[in-house]
Amino acid sequence: MYDFEFHNPTKIIFGRDKELLMGDVLKGDAITKVLLLYGSQSVKRSGLLDRVKDVLSRAGVGFIEFGGVVSNPVLSHTRQGVALAKSEAVEAILAVGGGSVLDEGKAIAVGALADVDVWDFFVGKEVSRALPVYTILTLAATASEMNGNSVVTNEETKQKYNITSPHVYPRVSILNPQLTCSVPADYSTYGAVDVIAHVIEAYFTKKPGTRLQDRLVEAIVKTVIDSHNIIRQEPDNYQARAEFMWTATLGLNGLTPSGVGQSSFPNHMIEHSLSAIYNIAHGAGLAIVMPAWMRWYSDRNPAQFERFARKIFGVEGAEAGIVALETWFRDIGAPIRLQDAEIPAADIDEIAANAAQLAKLWGIDDLYDQAAIAEILQLAV
Amino acid sequence: MYDFEFHNPTKIIFGRDKELLMGDVLKGDAITKVLLLYGSQSVKRSGLLDRVKDVLSRAGVGFIEFGGVVSNPVLSHTRQGVALAKSEAVEAILAVGGGSVLDEGKAIAVGALADVDVWDFFVGKEVSRALPVYTILTLAATASEMNGNSVVTNEETKQKYNITSPHVYPRVSILNPQLTCSVPADYSTYGAVDVIAHVIEAYFTKKPGTRLQDRLVEAIVKTVIDSHNIIRQEPDNYQARAEFMWTATLGLNGLTPSGVGQSSFPNHMIEHSLSAIYNIAHGAGLAIVMPAWMRWYSDRNPAQFERFARKIFGVEGAEAGIVALETWFRDIGAPIRLQDAEIPAADIDEIAANAAQLAKLWGIDDLYDQAAIAEILQLAV
Repeated sequence: MYDFEFHNPTKIIFGRDKELLMGDVLKGDAITKVLLLYGSQSVKRSGLLDRVKDVLSRAGVGFIEFGGVVSNPVLSHTRQGVALAKSEAVEAILAVGGGSVLDEGKAIAVGALADVDVWDFFVGKEVSRALPVYTILTLAATASEMNGNSVVTNEETKQKYNITSPHVYPRVSILNPQLTCSVPADYSTYGAVDVIAHVIEAYFTKKPGTRLQDRLVEAIVKTVIDSHNIIRQEPDNYQARAEFMWTATLGLNGLTPSGVGQSSFPNHMIEHSLSAIYNIAHGAGLAIVMPAWMRWYSDRNPAQFERFARKIFGVEGAEAGIVALETWFRDIGAPIRLQDAEIPAADIDEIAANAAQLAKLWGIDDLYDQAAIAEILQLAV
Repeated sequence: MYDFEFHNPTKIIFGRDKELLMGDVLKGDAITKVLLLYGSQSVKRSGLLDRVKDVLSRAGVGFIEFGGVVSNPVLSHTRQGVALAKSEAVEAILAVGGGSVLDEGKAIAVGALADVDVWDFFVGKEVSRALPVYTILTLAATASEMNGNSVVTNEETKQKYNITSPHVYPRVSILNPQLTCSVPADYSTYGAVDVIAHVIEAYFTKKPGTRLQDRLVEAIVKTVIDSHNIIRQEPDNYQARAEFMWTATLGLNGLTPSGVGQSSFPNHMIEHSLSAIYNIAHGAGLAIVMPAWMRWYSDRNPAQFERFARKIFGVEGAEAGIVALETWFRDIGAPIRLQDAEIPAADIDEIAANAAQLAKLWGIDDLYDQAAIAEILQLAV
């Protein structure tokens, strides 16, 4: 066990129809006007947006609507949101959607109280304050509903970068599994891949000897697999959606890495380049990167890869575990090679150069220089 | 999965020498005077109390000392603390010790802002506010460092009752595993028993079908066993003490019961009567009650008892799992029968009558009337 701090002040309200409480939640916190942020038409079609507007109105909470957040949220739209939040003098952000909407909401919350461009915070400026953020989650995957992370893509520079700050933990997040029942099969799959990626990056890259955290990670991975297997067959299965939703939240809310010491997120790093350049879904990119990275890395921590194989899939040997994971990814409809996502192998150097920039920013460029990243990507061909 | 709310705002600072940060923590929160609460002489002998007073002085935080908290903290001493906190107009409670000190600290925090007797809150009055509580933990077991519970015994009425309120979550808890290295073998054992009790009460009494939470509980139980087995051999083993300490915190910080729906704490209920009447250590009482209760209850949820046997001890059948747990309790030096703690079987009706009062207060008297509790206790003879 290594020294750590754990502080996660987000309040979770979990269950059927709980979005109806958001008006009272905001009123209770004396919020009188929010930026109501959302993404595509789906929250309109499903009636969710109308329901939320209705509960806000009934609670006497004013709102200004701002839709159009895209998957892999972009800086230009975030900047528009910041301008709107400032000009409308909103007191909080209410993000209704999946991880992309929540992430952009956090960025807007930071930008709204800053006198510099919001992108500055993604390239190193420290966040010292932010508007309070409230969320209603419609897609389980990123755990943005219960952490201090925000990932936004700068379309001009093709940089998919992040803010990590205690100031952007949502104050209250409402998780109603019913809202995720309409998530299409491919995005459900990408969510499952994403959650597994969140927990296994530290599991494999930390130092050995933290049994509790190993077991927590294994509990999460096994439950992702079990619940997603049901969701594939029965998209409307409330229990499976609920189980997956809470598992996803615990996958990146600070629990599993607490006490494990230094670890790194190389799969996310490389994936950020894939989706920055090709705009593929984050989970799709991860399904391509992970088996390749695992094969490249497993000799550095063989005991843990053997443990993973045994505990998760009941098979012996690191490679058998990687094959089992990769096979499961394929079975649930995720791409597992670059060509599955129509990414040309000829682009590997460009991707690696892009990822190497982020490796430098994250301070892991000693192991992950451009050549090493290219080597990993070659294993995804 | 059932509807739930999760909100645990306590900040944990974990690691070697971290108690030295407490002065800055309080100063950062603009606290200028605390009630410095502790128990026995051991925090004086170990030098911890002097270290804490020194960091408070250097940070310019005033304090009034109040020692003498006993294991199973008592109402009379709590009332003295409330009076002192009021007369000295302290702004916060700083509890330095184990679960007993923390629990009494929380009760004083409630009483200090109330115009009624503090016991009123233990028999049903709702807590609406409390002084902020800060803690430096010296004994891992109760998770009081990261939850909203406080248990105090009314010596006159022999009632060991509790407050549960969001207002008494510690604001910051410092967990330095080094401070637990001097915990004697018997109290280390009682701590291990207590943590297992915390997680298995809901595990066995909830409805089936919440796999994630089952796995989290199993991760905790297995890690308690693994780490305590090392602590028994090597009391100074920092890694084992650290692993046990964080496991104990996760054992009762709201994580494992979230989403499992209704569950109950019959073992704690019956044990509260044992320690209220005989003043035995909480963990010792639990080690006596648990195997008896498990045998009494297992037919009501056989699949879960079989699962427990298989997952924790690798044995088949409910009874084999109970025997394995009981054997481990005995091996680590815990009493497992009433007579091991010199409690006469002739007292069973008196104990059962006492526990039946609490069953009523907790609303579980439909299953746990006096006769049922006596039946359970007969299995501990």
